Order: sequence, then structure tokens, then C-alpha cells
Amino acid sequence: MALNPDRLFPIEPEARTLARRLHAGVETLPIISPHGHTEPRWYAEDAPFGDPAELFVVPDHYVFRMLYSQGVPLEQLGVPDAGGRRAETDGRAIWRLFAEHYHLFRGTPTRYWFEYSLETIFGVTERLGPANADRIYDTIAGRLGEADMRPRALYERFRIEAISTTDAATDDLKYHDAIHASGWKGRVLPTYRPDGVVDPERAGFADALPRFVSEAGEAMNYAGYLAAHRAKREYFKARGATATDHGHPSARTANLSEAEAGQLFQRVAKGEASPADAELFRAQMLTEMARMSRDDGLVMQIHPGSDRNHNPAVFKGFGPDKGGDIPRPTDYVEALKPLLAEVGNDPAVTVILFTLDETSYGRELAPLAGHYPALRLGPPWWFFDSPEGMRRFRELTTETAGFYNTVGFNDDTRAYLSIPARHDMARRADCAFLATLVADGRLDEDEAHEVARDLAYGLAKRAYRL
Amino acid sequence: MALNPDRLFPIEPEARTLARRLHAGVETLPIISPHGHTEPRWYAEDAPFGDPAELFVVPDHYVFRMLYSQGVPLEQLGVPDAGGRRAETDGRAIWRLFAEHYHLFRGTPTRYWFEYSLETIFGVTERLGPANADRIYDTIAGRLGEADMRPRALYERFRIEAISTTDAATDDLKYHDAIHASGWKGRVLPTYRPDGVVDPERAGFADALPRFVSEAGEAMNYAGYLAAHRAKREYFKARGATATDHGHPSARTANLSEAEAGQLFQRVAKGEASPADAELFRAQMLTEMARMSRDDGLVMQIHPGSDRNHNPAVFKGFGPDKGGDIPRPTDYVEALKPLLAEVGNDPAVTVILFTLDETSYGRELAPLAGHYPALRLGPPWWFFDSPEGMRRFRELTTETAGFYNTVGFNDDTRAYLSIPARHDMARRADCAFLATLVADGRLDEDEAHEVARDLAYGLAKRAYRL
Amino acid sequence: MALNPDRLFPIEPEARTLARRLHAGVETLPIISPHGHTEPRWYAEDAPFGDPAELFVVPDHYVFRMLYSQGVPLEQLGVPDAGGRRAETDGRAIWRLFAEHYHLFRGTPTRYWFEYSLETIFGVTERLGPANADRIYDTIAGRLGEADMRPRALYERFRIEAISTTDAATDDLKYHDAIHASGWKGRVLPTYRPDGVVDPERAGFADALPRFVSEAGEAMNYAGYLAAHRAKREYFKARGATATDHGHPSARTANLSEAEAGQLFQRVAKGEASPADAELFRAQMLTEMARMSRDDGLVMQIHPGSDRNHNPAVFKGFGPDKGGDIPRPTDYVEALKPLLAEVGNDPAVTVILFTLDETSYGRELAPLAGHYPALRLGPPWWFFDSPEGMRRFRELTTETAGFYNTVGFNDDTRAYLSIPARHDMARRADCAFLATLVADGRLDEDEAHEVARDLAYGLAKRAYRL
Repeated sequence: MALNPDRLFPIEPEARTLARRLHAGVETLPIISPHGHTEPRWYAEDAPFGDPAELFVVPDHYVFRMLYSQGVPLEQLGVPDAGGRRAETDGRAIWRLFAEHYHLFRGTPTRYWFEYSLETIFGVTERLGPANADRIYDTIAGRLGEADMRPRALYERFRIEAISTTDAATDDLKYHDAIHASGWKGRVLPTYRPDGVVDPERAGFADALPRFVSEAGEAMNYAGYLAAHRAKREYFKARGATATDHGHPSARTANLSEAEAGQLFQRVAKGEASPADAELFRAQMLTEMARMSRDDGLVMQIHPGSDRNHNPAVFKGFGPDKGGDIPRPTDYVEALKPLLAEVGNDPAVTVILFTLDETSYGRELAPLAGHYPALRLGPPWWFFDSPEGMRRFRELTTETAGFYNTVGFNDDTRAYLSIPARHDMARRADCAFLATLVADGRLDEDEAHEVARDLAYGLAKRAYRL
Repeated sequence: MALNPDRLFPIEPEARTLARRLHAGVETLPIISPHGHTEPRWYAEDAPFGDPAELFVVPDHYVFRMLYSQGVPLEQLGVPDAGGRRAETDGRAIWRLFAEHYHLFRGTPTRYWFEYSLETIFGVTERLGPANADRIYDTIAGRLGEADMRPRALYERFRIEAISTTDAATDDLKYHDAIHASGWKGRVLPTYRPDGVVDPERAGFADALPRFVSEAGEAMNYAGYLAAHRAKREYFKARGATATDHGHPSARTANLSEAEAGQLFQRVAKGEASPADAELFRAQMLTEMARMSRDDGLVMQIHPGSDRNHNPAVFKGFGPDKGGDIPRPTDYVEALKPLLAEVGNDPAVTVILFTLDETSYGRELAPLAGHYPALRLGPPWWFFDSPEGMRRFRELTTETAGFYNTVGFNDDTRAYLSIPARHDMARRADCAFLATLVADGRLDEDEAHEVARDLAYGLAKRAYRL
Repeated sequence: MALNPDRLFPIEPEARTLARRLHAGVETLPIISPHGHTEPRWYAEDAPFGDPAELFVVPDHYVFRMLYSQGVPLEQLGVPDAGGRRAETDGRAIWRLFAEHYHLFRGTPTRYWFEYSLETIFGVTERLGPANADRIYDTIAGRLGEADMRPRALYERFRIEAISTTDAATDDLKYHDAIHASGWKGRVLPTYRPDGVVDPERAGFADALPRFVSEAGEAMNYAGYLAAHRAKREYFKARGATATDHGHPSARTANLSEAEAGQLFQRVAKGEASPADAELFRAQMLTEMARMSRDDGLVMQIHPGSDRNHNPAVFKGFGPDKGGDIPRPTDYVEALKPLLAEVGNDPAVTVILFTLDETSYGRELAPLAGHYPALRLGPPWWFFDSPEGMRRFRELTTETAGFYNTVGFNDDTRAYLSIPARHDMARRADCAFLATLVADGRLDEDEAHEVARDLAYGLAKRAYRL
């Protein structure tokens, strides 16, 4: 059951050997993690993690959504309700439930990440199941208290060179300040994610917006609102931020006149925005953010196309991010025109596009990124952060956009222990793809080595200006 | 030309050997056929089949659509016109025409099914062509009269454990009753397909609706109409039905208030429904059917997204189901919300989703089925019931939904002789996929054996409650 | 760095050997090039080509769009501005810039075509880079002046049997006449492409329309306009044309009454067409063209779905066809109904469909072409004219439409030297696909040889009536 040293490589022996050689050149490169959701508090406080269930089940929507889909109640998995209360707090009971349903994860990336972590971090090489659930639980639990299992020690052990967190525009970044003040040398960088004060349909927007503007000492009008963004972006930059991130229902952008934008802002600020106004305001703000990026050099990321909280009962009972977000078709060709007309031809701007709609890879994203100097393609995201997803991404984008209009890998996770597993998967998947190109005569091996290193390390570092 | 024992397996030798081992464990498992279109009359009367053309060409839209696409008139293929008359009744002449155009089927599943049947049932291992058309015709014709070629004998020979037919809500199921009364032990089960009294745009709806309600002894209002459905579902259940099936242009669902639904029903019943009313009525009825499924335990199947009778000349001349149905883009994310809000979180309900829009596999269907307890994914359907289609289905759904949110295979055919061929293809395609996962280190072989058996047998049996 | 003799073949040795055998049977077949954009003037004047940059960089949007996407200004690449002026005319400087960014093309078809041409035409087997840029430049430049490098000599050397150009409806075809008058035996055939007088949104339409009608001696009404088309089609036919071509934003067709069409034409002719009118006029004209094809036997090609001139700054500065065209989702199922109701069931008509939306291959195009006698599928187009694109095309269309509802390969290029490279790629990609079908038992090898020859030669010749 131990990890196969050739996992994810092509199964044809010659191509497999090539993949091994390529992988040997990237296996131990440092990790650049330019987009993700680990907590800055972890690095600031460096406290030990909780029990095995709290580590692997309770906070991981990949895990509990699969169990839920087969009838396991979220309550029994210890998922906190909307008020933060957990119906089940017995880690061992949760772990047993996970072990009992472990077969559900056959063929999934969740299984891959989990087993990689089990073996490389905890030395467990058995497959989890009801029979060994308690034993494995004890092994993990026993290790969790040790000093080398704390966040900072793991940062070193994982060979992380830089890791970005994702932080609300209203955040004061006190944990980032604390990390810096501590003298620890790990690079934990904030990312400016202003959705909470940009999207009128987010819960809490009505309170957040005036607070955001007034804390900046600005007037409650469009100019003041934009000035508040500019100031807070500088605040983030001063703490190491190199990027912003925007999670919108669509990729729509707009470029209104100052008068129109000002009137729209007034409707939004008064809570009078219709759904169409809300969409237009988000669209307008993407273009504003792109202009600010041109000015302050922060790289801009757009993560569109998730139908958030699709399941009203789960949202009501357990809040957001509980596995009930579903991708939907996403247009980029029309949607991005206003933004691209403004900054698309500027090579000094970098806008990184993500998608949950794979049909756009070859039809829209690769043609756009293969033309506009400001555009780059983010790696396969969320449901597609998987071996098959990575293969499709390369097969559908490389021929039109090449490798150098992509930005390497994002682990995009809040599951800290899975970070090396995710980079391991991405490096192997990319080496497998490259080996195939060499084996069928489309690429020379020396070039494949160079590309492999760029995909594993160089492109992320350069695209995110790290 | 004889069947390759390694057909559809991976071509790399190690993975091929793995696929062989996996396949050996499932090759002779009984057939569960939970959705299809064979005629209950065949099993009731157990009469011999007609001539080879009537068996393989005249009723098979996969066959005659391809010939038609290359200019062969449907008349010459003996396809009955809208009045049921056949311009050509000479089976041998039709067969020769088929043989002459046999090269058109290169690379198609039709060819695979046909040759499997020829070899395993008739012992023919030559490739059909003009030179041997008559000889093969005679071989088949000679066998068709023999006792072991009758429907019940073939049921045994094919190792069918249970087979479901598809029956109109207005059907009295007399053939199912006759099968039962005959004492024969074959399990031939009806499926409740109420499209004819649910879809105001179906030919014959205006007559069928009042007859359906009055035969149930109910009043001609919405409550009476729903009561008629409930009663007829019980009638089907009493004859072995475990499932319903719904073939709609879209997957749209609705959940109207009682008053709204009642008014909509009145417009529908009076023949005053606009196209939007018709769509809304179908949508409302999917949610009603889901509620009834929650009450009576029948599994619900939704087959959406076919643009029926796309070719008006063929429809006028030859009626429906003549190869002129074309898939169209199908939304599930918005469409299913009303139904899912009603029954989606209930693990006791099973709704099986099919699609003719493969873009929804990874983007919508796997994320939905990987979250909602009530949802399962049906196998690749119609144009995608093929080796490549099956591979894409697994590659696009497994990583998010796993294997256990899918329901095994449906042969979905009216071509009785092709049933073993279709299950053979599905078992081989699944073993090929599993062998690849084992070969590249994502799955252990002992697990792959278990999954192979579930995909070939267990999942269909459990999902359809057979 | 020399070309791998097994390039693009399957990497598994047995399938590779099969592919080699299949390819040996098609490698030296003549080239049929039924759709492309070479200049008839080249064959008429038979003048030598310019410098290496003018040959490989300046006119090739595949090349300069990739360089532009990474920040290289079009000016520095010698791309002429909208007024036809080139800011950079030093071929060697442009070439060095290309060489410096050559790594961007790793994994792209552009690289494949370029290296095939370099080796087979110029004997260069080194990989281009900054170090050898000047040397390779000199080698190419030295060869370009030689007699065997002129257009007619290359036509013979490339083993072209027939090549179609693409010509405006307003073209007088004087170069085609000159080719014919010269006594040279090369077959260079015009194709009727009337977009400039069919699409009210094209630049220059307002001038072109009345000139087109009056030059035909017809009255400026709908009947006169249609008569002008009929006459010009005959003019093209008399010069060897066998086909028409239509590049529309969508595949929409319409079939208006004579009165409606006449009124629509009046609005169009007066410059009063709304965007909806323009779309409807294009739609109507596709059906008119299909009717004319039924009468005069010209094969009809439809190339829909490109969002032309997506980048307004590039369009303003450099004009059309500068890499700023982006695919968009394209519907065929609804869009083609009017046209298909008119000619779809006529086996004497041939309408060849292309797409920039790969989602339509399996969902719409293969089902349509696998049913309607008048429909055939064109090869993968533009962004998908690549090894992966060709593989997806076959995998997604063959099972439903077979091989014989497709029309072989189009090189579709204005890059004359890349023509053999593109056919080489297509022949290898098809042999690779066929070898896989043979290796996994779905096709017999003797049939695969026959299909390979049809895909490389016979289908194009027959579909385009050459």
C-alpha cells in the first residue's frame, strides 16, 4: 500500500523512464505557494494542531462533502453548525466514520493527498479501514504533540520558500505583523481579497462597506471608496502582499463613466442595489482593481464561476464553504472586454484567470492568454485540481498558449498538511505530460527539463513577483 | 476477424494484463438491466424473432441513421412510414444494402455490438461485406427459427438476472401480468414513464390526459391528476416496478404553490398552455414525482436534453425515434434547485441524472452528485454509450464524485440481441479505466477488483433497489 | 534535434509499429488542399519569396500572437500597421527577436510546422535559438533566391494535386486567369467567399454591395442581389471553383418569406440595418447560398464562431487578422434548422461544417452529420489544427458520425511553406488514432489502411468534388 514511486507517470515504460528523469530534477525544489487559505494565525502562534479528525476531516470540504453525498450527516462528522457548535467532538468517533467510508474516495485526489501525508509525515503505509482506524488514529495523535509538527517546523520541513494567505480587505493583518515581529524567517504574505466590500450580495456587506470607508478616513462616495481601496492595498503591500484575489459569480467586467459609477455606488451603499446592480458593481470593481494593479504593481487574480451555497438547507444549518458550491458555465470572451480594453495590452500588468468551466480552456482562455500581454492562466482549480484535471489543462491550453502563459501551480488549500502532497501531484502530472511530448517527438528532453523546473518553481515565482 | 480477447483493454502490456485479471472477475456476472426498451410482449409471448434485417437493421436507429446520413433512403431500409407501412419488406435486399455500406460503421459502437452478437450468438466470425452478405444472412435466418433463439431462452443464455422495460403511464401492463401468470421465472419489471400525460407538447397528450385521470376515477383538477399518478405508480409497483423515468427537453424543475400549480394545470388541461406553460408544467411535475418517490420509494430517473424530431421531413414521413434527435446544451445547476431543495438532502430518495451534454459531467453533475445525498449519476447515454464515451465519463466524474455516486451500467436498448454486447463493452471499458488507475499507482489491485464488480453488478442492483 | 521519424505516433511499441505501417501507405500521397489562404498571385507571377522573417514571422498570426502575448510589440516584429507601413523592416532583427523567444513555442503546432519546414526544405536540423539565429537566417536567405524555391516549383515538390484559394465575391480572379493562360499545369482553384457583400457589419460593406450588384448589371433589390450572386458563382465555377465559404459570427440560418427578405435587404442596402438585422441577413443568406448550391453543385463551407477583432487597440493599430480573434460558444442545433429543412435531406448537396467550439463535436456536430445526408464535418480548425485537437476531433466524432461523414484535412493556411508540414501532422495524427483502434481490437488492419488513405486523400477529393 506504500506510495508507488512511479505514481501518476505514464504507464508506457519508455515514457515512464523519461518522466522519472524529469521528476528527479524538480522533486526537491522549494515550494512556492502563491495562493491558498492557510491561517496566518498558525504561523504567528505556532501552536500544535488538534486531533486527527480536526486535521483531516472536520475542516476539509473535499472529505466531508463526499461522505455527506452518501448519507453521512455533517453533524456526525463534527462539522460546526452556523453558530459554530459541533454536535460531535469525539475525534475518534469521527475518524472511525471516515475509515468506514474510506472506499468512497477510490480514484479521487483526496485519497492521494491523504495517503501522501500519512506516509511522508506520519510514516503510515497501511490503507485506512475500519480494522486499523484506531491504530492509525493513535499514531497520528501521538505525533501531533511533538515539536517538529508545529506550523513553523512544518514550513521548513515542507521546503516552503513563500506562502500567501488570503485576507479580507477589512483585515488588519495583525498575525502577519506578529510573524514579522517574531523574527521567524518564514515568508507568509497576505493577499488582498476585497470581496466582502465589493460584492453587495455577500452576507455582512451592508456593515462592512461603511466601516471600510470610514476606517480609511474617506468620504462615503465612490471616490472615497476607491481611495480606501488604494490605501488598504498599500497597507497590504507594506506587509509583503504581491497580489489581489477576486472571487466573483461571473467574470463580467465593466468600465462605466465616473458619473454612472458614482450613481451605482450610491445605490449599492444605500442597500438599494438590484441583482443587476450588484453584478454591474462587481464588474466595475474588477476594472477598477485592474487599474490599481497597473498603478501599484499587485498581480490580480480572478476566480469566477462558482454558484455558492447551492444547497439552502446546508447553508442555513452550517454556513458557507460546506461543499455546496457548484460550478457553472462561465463566459470570458464578452465578459472581459471592458477590462482588457483598459489594461490588456500592458505587459507590466498581470491578470491571472481561473475557471471552473473546463470548456473555456481551449475555446476562450488559451486564445485570450495567447494574445493579450496582460493575461496569464492560473492552474486547474478546485474540482479540477487533480491528475486528470491537470492533464486536460495542459492538453487544452499548451498548443495555443504554450507553457509560458501559465503560472505554475497553486495549492489553494486550507489543509496545511496536504500542501506537499498537492505540489507532489502537480509536479508528477506535469512531468508525465512533458514526458509524453518528448516520447512522441514534440519536445527535446533538455527543454523538457527546463519547462519542468519552470512549472514547478520559476513560473509561480515570476508571475506572482515573489 | 474474430473478436479480440483483449478488445478495449489498455494497449500497454502491463496495464492490459491488469485489465484481463479485473475482467476475469466480472465477465460472467449476471446482467442487471435496470433501464431499457425491450418489449414486455416478447417475454410474454415468447415468439421467434423475424428475419435478420428485422433483427439488426429495421428497428435500430443507430444503424439506419448512419446509412441515411450517407444517402440511403429510409424506404429502402424497410423503415416503416408514419402509417406503419414498409416500402421494402424483402429482408435480404435490406441486408445487402447494409452489407454494401458496412464500412461506414468503422470505429463505431454499432459495429462492436453487431460483431459481438454475430460471433457469440450466430457463430459468424467473418466481417460482413457484399461478398458474404447472403451467406451470413442465411446463417442468421437459419438459427432464428430454433427454440433456443426465443426471448425467454435468450434471457437465460444472456444470464439476465432482472430487466426493466419502459412503460407509459397509461399502459395496463397486461404483458407483465401475462409473464407473471405464465409461471416463467424471468424478472421483467415495468418502469413508470409518464411523459405522455406530463408533457403538453407530446403528440396525443390532449387525449391521453383526461383518459388517464378519468380511468383513475379522479376529478379533472390538479389534486385529482396527482392522485391518478399516485394510484398508477402503486399499480406499477405491485407489478414489480422499482423506478420511474422522465424524458424531458430540459432538466428544469419547479416548485409552485398549490394555487399556481392548480391554475397551470387548468391551462394545460384546456389545451391553452403556451410553450412556457408547457415547460413549467413539466418542471413542476418533476418535483411532484420526486415527492412521490420520497413517499413510495420508486427510484427516479431524469433523461433530459434531447431535441426530438429535429428533422421535420423525417418526422412527417416516418414518425418519432428515427435518428433525428439531436442533443443540446443542458443546464443542471439552476434547473435542479427547486427539486433539490425539496428532496436533495434526503438519503432515502434516489434521483438518477443522465445527460447528452458531456460538458456537464465535470462542471455540474459530478459536483452535484458529490454533494447531494439524493443524487446519483446514470451511465453515459445514447451517443455516449461507447468506449470513448465511457472513458470520458469516468475521467470526468470519478475525481469529484467517486465510483459510488454512479449506478453501474444501463444498456438502454430495444435491440435485445445487443444487450450482452453492450454489457461486455461497459465491463471492458470500466476494467480498462481501473487498470490504468492501478498501473499509475492511484488504486490498489484488490480494491480495483471490488470496484469492477460493483460497476458491473452491485451498483445497479443497489441503486435501482433490485 | 532532427525530426523524430515516429513523431506523433502512439508511444506504446506495438501501436507505434502499426502506426508506422499505416503511415507508410499515405506518406507520399499527393496533397489535396481544398481550403486555404495562399495567394493566387504567387502562382501567377512565380516570383521568389522575401527574407526569412517575411516568410516565417511577419505574416503568420500563430507566430506573432504568441510573441505579442509575452510583451513583444508587433511593431518590432515588422507587422504592418493599418496603413500598411512596417516600423521594422530589418528581417535579421526580427528573426533574432523570434529566436530569442523561441522557447515560447514549446509544445505548440507552430513549432512543429516550423521545424518540419526548416529540415525538409532548408536542411536545418538544429533547434533555433539566439546562438544560431544568424547562421540559420543566412542558410534560409541563401536558399530563397534559388529557382526551385519559387511557388510553382514548390507546388510540384510538395506533390500538390489541387489547391483552392479563398476569394472575395468582388474579385475578378485575374490571377487565376493568368495561371491558366500561362499553360502551367498546377491546379489552383478559386473559392467563392462572399462575406464582404453578405455581412453588413464588415468594413467596406456599404461600398461593396452596390458595386457588386451593379457590376452584375442587376437592379438594386433582393432579386437582383441574388441574381448577382448566381452569376458570380458561375463566373467562379468557370474558373474551376468547386466550393463556397462563409465566415460568420454564428451558424444561424433563416428562411424568410420573399417579402420579408426583400424588406430586410432594403434596410441593409440603405445602411439602416440594426445588429439584429445584420445577423438575420447573414442567416438568410446562408440558406440562399445553400439553395444555390443545390442548383449549381458548389460545395458549401460554413466557418462560424469567431469573435473577430476582440482587441480594439490592435485592430485600430494593425487591422484585422492580427491574432485578436477569439472563439466563442456556437450553437448548431437550433441555428441550422431553417437551412436543413430546406436542403438537409438532399444527398446531392454538401454542406461542410466547421467549429471553434469543441463542445459541439460530440453533442451537436456528430449527431447532425450522422443523420442529415447533406452534412459533413470539416477537420479541426484554427486553434484546434494540432495533434491534440485532431485526436479530440476523432475521439468525439467517430463513434457517432464515423469516418465517412468527415472530409479529410484542410491546411487552411496562408503560410505556403507550412502546407506539407500540416498535412504531415494530420496524416500522422490520423494514423495514430487508427493504430489505437486496431491495437485495442476495434478495427481490422486492412480496413485501417483503407481509412488512412481516405482521410489523407480520398475524402477531401470526393467531398470537394475535385
